[in-house]
Amino acid sequence: MTSREECRALDASDELAPIRSDFILDDAVLYLDGNSLGPVSKAARSRVHELIDTQWAQELVRGWGNGWMQGPTRLGNRLAPLIGARQGEVVVADTLTILLAKLIGGALDQRRDRHVVLTDVANFHSDIYIVRAMAARAGRPITVKAIERSTLDQVLGDDVALVMLTHVDFRTGEMLDMKAITQKVHDAGALMLWDLAHSTGAVPLDVTDADVDFAAGCGYKYLNGGPGAPAFLYVRTSWQGIVENPLPGWLGHARPFDFELGYEPAPGVQAFVTSSPSMLGLAALDGALDVWDRATMDQVRAKSLAMTDLFIALVQERLAGLFEVVTPLEHHRRGSQVALRHDQAYGIIQALIERNVIGDFRAPDICRFGFTPLYLRFVDVYDAIEQLVSVMESEAYRDERFVVRKAVT
Amino acid sequence: MTSREECRALDASDELAPIRSDFILDDAVLYLDGNSLGPVSKAARSRVHELIDTQWAQELVRGWGNGWMQGPTRLGNRLAPLIGARQGEVVVADTLTILLAKLIGGALDQRRDRHVVLTDVANFHSDIYIVRAMAARAGRPITVKAIERSTLDQVLGDDVALVMLTHVDFRTGEMLDMKAITQKVHDAGALMLWDLAHSTGAVPLDVTDADVDFAAGCGYKYLNGGPGAPAFLYVRTSWQGIVENPLPGWLGHARPFDFELGYEPAPGVQAFVTSSPSMLGLAALDGALDVWDRATMDQVRAKSLAMTDLFIALVQERLAGLFEVVTPLEHHRRGSQVALRHDQAYGIIQALIERNVIGDFRAPDICRFGFTPLYLRFVDVYDAIEQLVSVMESEAYRDERFVVRKAVT
Repeated sequence: MTSREECRALDASDELAPIRSDFILDDAVLYLDGNSLGPVSKAARSRVHELIDTQWAQELVRGWGNGWMQGPTRLGNRLAPLIGARQGEVVVADTLTILLAKLIGGALDQRRDRHVVLTDVANFHSDIYIVRAMAARAGRPITVKAIERSTLDQVLGDDVALVMLTHVDFRTGEMLDMKAITQKVHDAGALMLWDLAHSTGAVPLDVTDADVDFAAGCGYKYLNGGPGAPAFLYVRTSWQGIVENPLPGWLGHARPFDFELGYEPAPGVQAFVTSSPSMLGLAALDGALDVWDRATMDQVRAKSLAMTDLFIALVQERLAGLFEVVTPLEHHRRGSQVALRHDQAYGIIQALIERNVIGDFRAPDICRFGFTPLYLRFVDVYDAIEQLVSVMESEAYRDERFVVRKAVT
Repeated sequence: MTSREECRALDASDELAPIRSDFILDDAVLYLDGNSLGPVSKAARSRVHELIDTQWAQELVRGWGNGWMQGPTRLGNRLAPLIGARQGEVVVADTLTILLAKLIGGALDQRRDRHVVLTDVANFHSDIYIVRAMAARAGRPITVKAIERSTLDQVLGDDVALVMLTHVDFRTGEMLDMKAITQKVHDAGALMLWDLAHSTGAVPLDVTDADVDFAAGCGYKYLNGGPGAPAFLYVRTSWQGIVENPLPGWLGHARPFDFELGYEPAPGVQAFVTSSPSMLGLAALDGALDVWDRATMDQVRAKSLAMTDLFIALVQERLAGLFEVVTPLEHHRRGSQVALRHDQAYGIIQALIERNVIGDFRAPDICRFGFTPLYLRFVDVYDAIEQLVSVMESEAYRDERFVVRKAVT
């Protein structure tokens, strides 16, 4: 049996351990939900204060001339190394769904002779809503097929314009082989759009090596940019100047201050910026990215796998037979979260939250736990399991307050 | 001649004067650009701090269950009285261009037998880009006509699906007759979408009385929500449940946490929310709206007209013949800004900024000055004119640094 002392020893030798103090955390809370909303870092907090006190308050509108206009590309360039993108291929703006709309619309215009879009039926539901919505506005009849991803090979034909998949499954934590799938999609003459929401800052990514066409992700999960943080998109250099932003705006214009009636896209990925960016949102994300000056993705990945291995081992040791471990056991197929299936998943998560162990429920029967090596300790994993054992032994999840599921969990 | 003492006397009797202390302002700066970016209020600043320190840091992901999800509608309801909307007709989200995209797309779907959209050639250029972009994705051939608004009567025929106009012209400050134009558009069987960017918080608005179908505006001008603040949209109750959001997302779903594959819009205006809102942006705007608990729009309008009258009178007294006053002199046709035309407009604005008088340049030849009664004093108007007189007498605008116009002003 794995002991708490062994977990303490792992923490003692953990190179990333000092980074925990970069975040504002309540030691009484075991936070296994940083894959949904990352915590606030001290740098994010102070960058927002600085934006308000020394930029907005003092520079007023002059802030736009003093760097705000460049915010989306500057942040994009800071974030690019985390996904293996080159400089000038990423912008930070809007929200994930809006950025997906831009990329889907732009991509479909590039394959006008094809009329099928493939996506994963297990995608986060918004991704499916927006791909259907943009397909309906593509100017030609398009069929969106939400498939079981295991059937991709059979469905991928020469009628497919675009494949949109999520790299790490939001429910199960399964990670797909980005390079192999992208290659397969390209071999079929289709374009590839990856949703990196559950990957960015969580697992190593190399969109360049995988020859990805388009990608997008969000800023509030493993990037710790705060609730509703701006999202990011990636457009491979070779597509820039070719693929158009279907939601054009003044910040994506070649000469925004010339107030021209005709839209002429700015060079590069800037064309995918629509409006003036949320500077408060960018400031928080900017600060949150500071932590990557002190941590490498290899370190984070190694610790993430050690943590998810530990969690799974403890579930098997201490809770044998009670849960189905839905997340793949093979490292190369695992993101940075673990999903446990149980009929009483909703009540289990609620009972854990009452014990200050924060995970989340994903309908209909998944207990989801995120592992975020920048600030989580091995001993936290151990203590969370202790609480889970207690919940299961006491059957606290059967509490009548948990019978009717609340709309918001 | 109007004297500085008279301006002081106006300030002394100004009911709104105490509200200036709600804002963080540098007394050395005469800020006539609150129509572009409003300053930070103390309440906005403290609301952002509170969001970070007591919500994000302490509640973490639980914040979504403790009110964040309702942010877009809660803020919409706070803002509604400023535009004469009822509760449940306004949401705060995204950016102005994205919200216009939603409304344009939704509106065009309601007039499938018509194929023309009319908009004002003098609109802010982004409005024209997005209306063209959404028209191109309407699923049928649509002609967008950017017209001189004086010709609306001639062009408004039974082929027109939608008319999109800006209520207060961003360059000239001319205010249109919302009610009369909306009536005319409805008489032609078309739908009416108003851009209220330069109106909201600046002039009295009553979208209900004017029977407006759709409207949108931004949060960072007269509402003082901060750089890149979230925008708002209005959908008249009678259109809710009928007009669809063409950019659907999980927060606009009837049951967002059921993760359903099919999109079923939430009841009411919530359906126009796409993604998780930027909570930092909402917090700042929320705080900024506090000021309206202490000021009425009638007070603001009366002071605004007194200020623009004063400014125009001083231009005529002190700078006779040098500028064309582009803004209408009739009160009912004037927003809360004054535009002066001059060949050297760019250099004049730059020279003023060097003297701490902040206005802005709008290509090709407009000096634009915004008047924001919540924090501007009559004596500021007087002092700004003093500086303008100095710039004109010294010909400081001819400085070689101002010969080549910088991209960002």
